[in-house]
Amino acid sequence: MLFDLPTPGFSFELLATLGNARAGILHTPRGDIPTPVFMPVGTLGTVKGMTADELRAEPIDAKIILGNTYHLYLRPGLEVMEHAGGLHKFAAWDRPILTDSGGFQVFSLAAINEIDDDGVTFRSHIDGSKHRLTPEVSIHIQKVLGSDIMMCFDECPPGDAPEAKQEEALARTTAWAKRCRAAPRGPGQSLFGIVQGGIDGARRLRHMAEITKLDFDGHALGGLAVGEKIEETYRILDEVAHVLPAERPRYLMGVGTPADLERGIQAGIDMFDCVMPTRNARNGYLFTEGQRVNIPNAANRLDLGPIDPTCPCSTCRTHSRAYLRHLYVAKEILYARLATLHNLTFYARHVRRLRERILAEGTRA
Amino acid sequence: MLFDLPTPGFSFELLATLGNARAGILHTPRGDIPTPVFMPVGTLGTVKGMTADELRAEPIDAKIILGNTYHLYLRPGLEVMEHAGGLHKFAAWDRPILTDSGGFQVFSLAAINEIDDDGVTFRSHIDGSKHRLTPEVSIHIQKVLGSDIMMCFDECPPGDAPEAKQEEALARTTAWAKRCRAAPRGPGQSLFGIVQGGIDGARRLRHMAEITKLDFDGHALGGLAVGEKIEETYRILDEVAHVLPAERPRYLMGVGTPADLERGIQAGIDMFDCVMPTRNARNGYLFTEGQRVNIPNAANRLDLGPIDPTCPCSTCRTHSRAYLRHLYVAKEILYARLATLHNLTFYARHVRRLRERILAEGTRA
Repeated sequence: MLFDLPTPGFSFELLATLGNARAGILHTPRGDIPTPVFMPVGTLGTVKGMTADELRAEPIDAKIILGNTYHLYLRPGLEVMEHAGGLHKFAAWDRPILTDSGGFQVFSLAAINEIDDDGVTFRSHIDGSKHRLTPEVSIHIQKVLGSDIMMCFDECPPGDAPEAKQEEALARTTAWAKRCRAAPRGPGQSLFGIVQGGIDGARRLRHMAEITKLDFDGHALGGLAVGEKIEETYRILDEVAHVLPAERPRYLMGVGTPADLERGIQAGIDMFDCVMPTRNARNGYLFTEGQRVNIPNAANRLDLGPIDPTCPCSTCRTHSRAYLRHLYVAKEILYARLATLHNLTFYARHVRRLRERILAEGTRA
Repeated sequence: MLFDLPTPGFSFELLATLGNARAGILHTPRGDIPTPVFMPVGTLGTVKGMTADELRAEPIDAKIILGNTYHLYLRPGLEVMEHAGGLHKFAAWDRPILTDSGGFQVFSLAAINEIDDDGVTFRSHIDGSKHRLTPEVSIHIQKVLGSDIMMCFDECPPGDAPEAKQEEALARTTAWAKRCRAAPRGPGQSLFGIVQGGIDGARRLRHMAEITKLDFDGHALGGLAVGEKIEETYRILDEVAHVLPAERPRYLMGVGTPADLERGIQAGIDMFDCVMPTRNARNGYLFTEGQRVNIPNAANRLDLGPIDPTCPCSTCRTHSRAYLRHLYVAKEILYARLATLHNLTFYARHVRRLRERILAEGTRA
């Protein structure tokens, strides 16, 4: 079943369902994105350590990557991005890009000076310079970045904020979502709404009703996996993901482990992003079909086998754990490349396998 | 003219000469090395930031790389290298490798405890642990590393050491060269002698006579470009390089800038290594046909052109100076990769062009 999305050129094709899990294709002007999909995070216009060619090639074959509005706004800044003609040209990436709104980073990285109904004034985590983000400014930055999928600017209160604060943030996020929806975007730029509400299921559903009324191209669950117990995350996922409109893509922001992705897909999520595969790689943690490999471990010192004998990535086909451990210990740049290539391959294959299972065992939509 | 070298499987083919400059091919069991050649430095079993595939592919197409005996002996250490079956297998590099003897690093990086006629006792620059290198130990380590070209263990006194000290070091280097020559090597492992003597031409020629008597597969000039004025380096090169036996390859150790390479080739040198292209790349200095580019420079902020429009490397074909500057400023790993790929391409093309000129304008040998 093919569903046109509000933004011209975008449509969502539902191919099969298995329980709440779905397999589909998000069609965009810059290319098709088979879902469920894992989106590698390219914070500063680069998925750390990787070239665009490596991301595009098998076995990663990333159909979409993320860019971070907050980071790119601070560095290289809007003048450079505008001059370069947007993030695709700047980073030589011709497939779709999703940009977040900057909200999460403002609330987690920057020093907040003031939050009011209009927006947020904050100081840069790099040089302390003062900046202001509003829904209109966030959409404008994302317009300049030229992302294919924009996200609404939302307020992200701490999970342990008092009840009244949570409600205030929720109301503000809805008001800001309306302003984001009304702000001008470029052609080929879709916009997703974000459902907040913490780990209170009723509040989530109430906010979802407000957000889904606004006719976004897709819907995201924000504010999950931000410190709450994983059982709480899973409970909320099970309660709310399948209630999100079935004819639009559903995106779980900033999640998570391979197990989290599987749970999210079972709950009905279509899109994921997380720094875990890339950051863990650089920190020495490598994913495998079996146990996670901690590469600095002395056990790898003389191990001439690959990280994962079942993995088709060039790191596993070419290099031993002993070599990778040596590069890690010697702080060699090559380590980060080889490790990131492997972990992104693991995530890509993991999600593709789950998608194949839905297609094979599910009901044709 | 084809000259067999003392080690079975090795021969040196002289194709053409142009003044003192020579174009040839060093034939080795692991492959042919067209000379003059620039050898990228792979200190710790990796040319920093590069994969073996990138080094082997056009436009770099490195026919031989270096490994550093001192560094690899300390990390990952001989047990790992022996277990892995040598550096080629460990680093997945199937073309020739030249290893230095560790001498230069012991005298420049380590804390020396004692130098005597037998060898050198020193403390590791990493953890202060105590070690001892002798000619026999150096050759043994290089045997374990499995390099195709080994270097003799030599004493490298400071350039400003007193006369008596220089003479003592020279005599020791000759004595150690004899011991290196006598030490057991593996099949397919050749050995180069090193001519020292600082910037005193007569002393250089006297030492050359001692070293060239020992029937090495090739000869190196050591202890140049170690702090003396560049005119002194060039003067010594002009005085001694062409006197080295013509039927064996000549190697100028640790040199240098693109201009130095050109001068060395004119003087009759066949082989070069230097960290300059790789280290400069990481530090923001990029070589071009015109002026050297200092990538952090604000002038590159909005420059959408490549580092060098005449360069065929994928960095120049894909990315702008503005993007590279952004990656550099943001300390992104990808910067080091892209910059190193470019600088190594520049060096490879530079030397290949000089070789082509000798073949085109020179006299058939």
